[in-house]
Amino acid sequence: MKSIPGLFLLFLLLISNLSVSQNCSYVIVIHGGAGNIRPENLPPLVASTYESKLKEVLRVGDSLLNAGSTSLDAVETCIRMMEDCPLFNAGKGAVFNAEGKNEMDASVMDGKTGLAGAVAGVTTIKNPIRAARAVMEKSQHVMLSGKGAESFAKSQGLEIVAPDYFFTQERWNDYLKAKNKADSIEIIDKKHGTVGCVALDKYGNLAAGTSTGGMTMKRYGRIGDSPIIGAGTYADNNTCAVSATGHGEFFIRNVVAYDISALMKYKGLSLQDATSEVIMNKLKSQGGTGGVIAVDKNGNIAMTFNTPGMFRGYVKAGGEMKVALYGEK
Amino acid sequence: MKSIPGLFLLFLLLISNLSVSQNCSYVIVIHGGAGNIRPENLPPLVASTYESKLKEVLRVGDSLLNAGSTSLDAVETCIRMMEDCPLFNAGKGAVFNAEGKNEMDASVMDGKTGLAGAVAGVTTIKNPIRAARAVMEKSQHVMLSGKGAESFAKSQGLEIVAPDYFFTQERWNDYLKAKNKADSIEIIDKKHGTVGCVALDKYGNLAAGTSTGGMTMKRYGRIGDSPIIGAGTYADNNTCAVSATGHGEFFIRNVVAYDISALMKYKGLSLQDATSEVIMNKLKSQGGTGGVIAVDKNGNIAMTFNTPGMFRGYVKAGGEMKVALYGEK
Repeated sequence: MKSIPGLFLLFLLLISNLSVSQNCSYVIVIHGGAGNIRPENLPPLVASTYESKLKEVLRVGDSLLNAGSTSLDAVETCIRMMEDCPLFNAGKGAVFNAEGKNEMDASVMDGKTGLAGAVAGVTTIKNPIRAARAVMEKSQHVMLSGKGAESFAKSQGLEIVAPDYFFTQERWNDYLKAKNKADSIEIIDKKHGTVGCVALDKYGNLAAGTSTGGMTMKRYGRIGDSPIIGAGTYADNNTCAVSATGHGEFFIRNVVAYDISALMKYKGLSLQDATSEVIMNKLKSQGGTGGVIAVDKNGNIAMTFNTPGMFRGYVKAGGEMKVALYGEK
Repeated sequence: MKSIPGLFLLFLLLISNLSVSQNCSYVIVIHGGAGNIRPENLPPLVASTYESKLKEVLRVGDSLLNAGSTSLDAVETCIRMMEDCPLFNAGKGAVFNAEGKNEMDASVMDGKTGLAGAVAGVTTIKNPIRAARAVMEKSQHVMLSGKGAESFAKSQGLEIVAPDYFFTQERWNDYLKAKNKADSIEIIDKKHGTVGCVALDKYGNLAAGTSTGGMTMKRYGRIGDSPIIGAGTYADNNTCAVSATGHGEFFIRNVVAYDISALMKYKGLSLQDATSEVIMNKLKSQGGTGGVIAVDKNGNIAMTFNTPGMFRGYVKAGGEMKVALYGEK
């Protein structure tokens, strides 16, 4: 008689373990910027180069999360890969500011602890996202800027490079065009974009990160939304992880990343409804262009943008992967 | 027979006018920082000096709003007066960073338009709050930093001063104490504080602003919550205007100023309940010290802090004025 309750307990234990591992399947989402991305603006070879790179990044994210890495590690690694790739406006390949320099911003947030880190206006840190994470984990601060951020990164042993490491001919040509007013900055910048990544790991922890070179010809030490916690990046294990890309000023004023979390937490909206409300209603009505990627605590994802396209993709535990550049019909 | 409905209509018109002017009565609230402000830490003469200055600032705010100024003008003027006063850690009297320099941040937001402006890490702009407003009104950007912000301010005709304008012997002594580790920075900084102002004008428009010298001995180009829209400053005519002061890193991670607005907008909390939830529950449970001043669209005010004291005060249309330094029993 004693063995039946024992077996029943074992059965319950198995069930509960199964359900835990189901709930804790992982997902990772990336973006490489939103903007005037249309088939007619991207030669097929360029489009397929973007697609290949997004897939490569996602495969790395997938293998990390599958092997038990944290969402924070996966987010940092995927953003680092995009920073190292000249296709994106972050790290190598960043756009040039009004003085012809590359000046970058990045931020990261850990949904488990609520901790966050960011750097703004850095010019010599090879991977700004690594510096943002070091600020989060190794300093008392959330946001460091300029030379101070660089000297902190150096003190943490991060790789420092000469400013010309970030040079690419294509972005330099854009800079010259913008400087000579051959094209408006809006037209030039609409082809580029910030990068970002959000992830849910096997342990149920969310993380988000964003990295950017800002706007071509930006002046006056302008800081956009990417290094601002709550605007460009936000993560909370109770709701979602968000990374934004777009016209930064609108994203700051609308506290976009945190607003999505607040709509879920306080109004009970789903992730998709919350991102639609903010990107397709609020921002669009103000003329604020851009998009977000987001993942919630249950692994639901959203890739929402009010521009013609957004470089984006996701991969889920089990291997389901999707990469897309343009808006869906 | 015709005159009775006519009189009734006139009566209705009078009633409705009365109710409009009641709804549109103004209010202005200021703070000069939260911290370890206790009677035993402030000699009576110093305490009365703070009280007098707070009253002087409020009287100016009162007369401006009474004469029909906008909340934005009143907020700027009141903050400017506190920046010019060496009692507060903003403008003249700002604390010194690790390099022995004064490096200031400020931000402002207009609840009517949703526009916002901020400067971070400026060292030569006499009134950072004026620069923040110029960023909002005269640039395409929300946030400018460092030398870029200074060159923009100069281009706008704002008063530029030599960095030693901001010097005060008292703050310099604090810096030397911190440098020589005579006192911990926490102990030294707990006596100081950011300044801020929120107001509702006769036209029903809300505005908020914040200005600070940051933390004594701050390093690495650290940016706190004061110049971050959503963290240190937020205003929305549909909800409230908020200015924060305290341990900036906690205020950034918790998106404090916007969170108060979101709790009102999405959960229907009152202003007092929303500020209490954020300051007394969320922040306190994390060890985040500080406070906020806030005013809602109906003229209700909140001055909520989880520290022993906060320099604060308000004045309402009709002349009701209150100034206080310590927590109430």
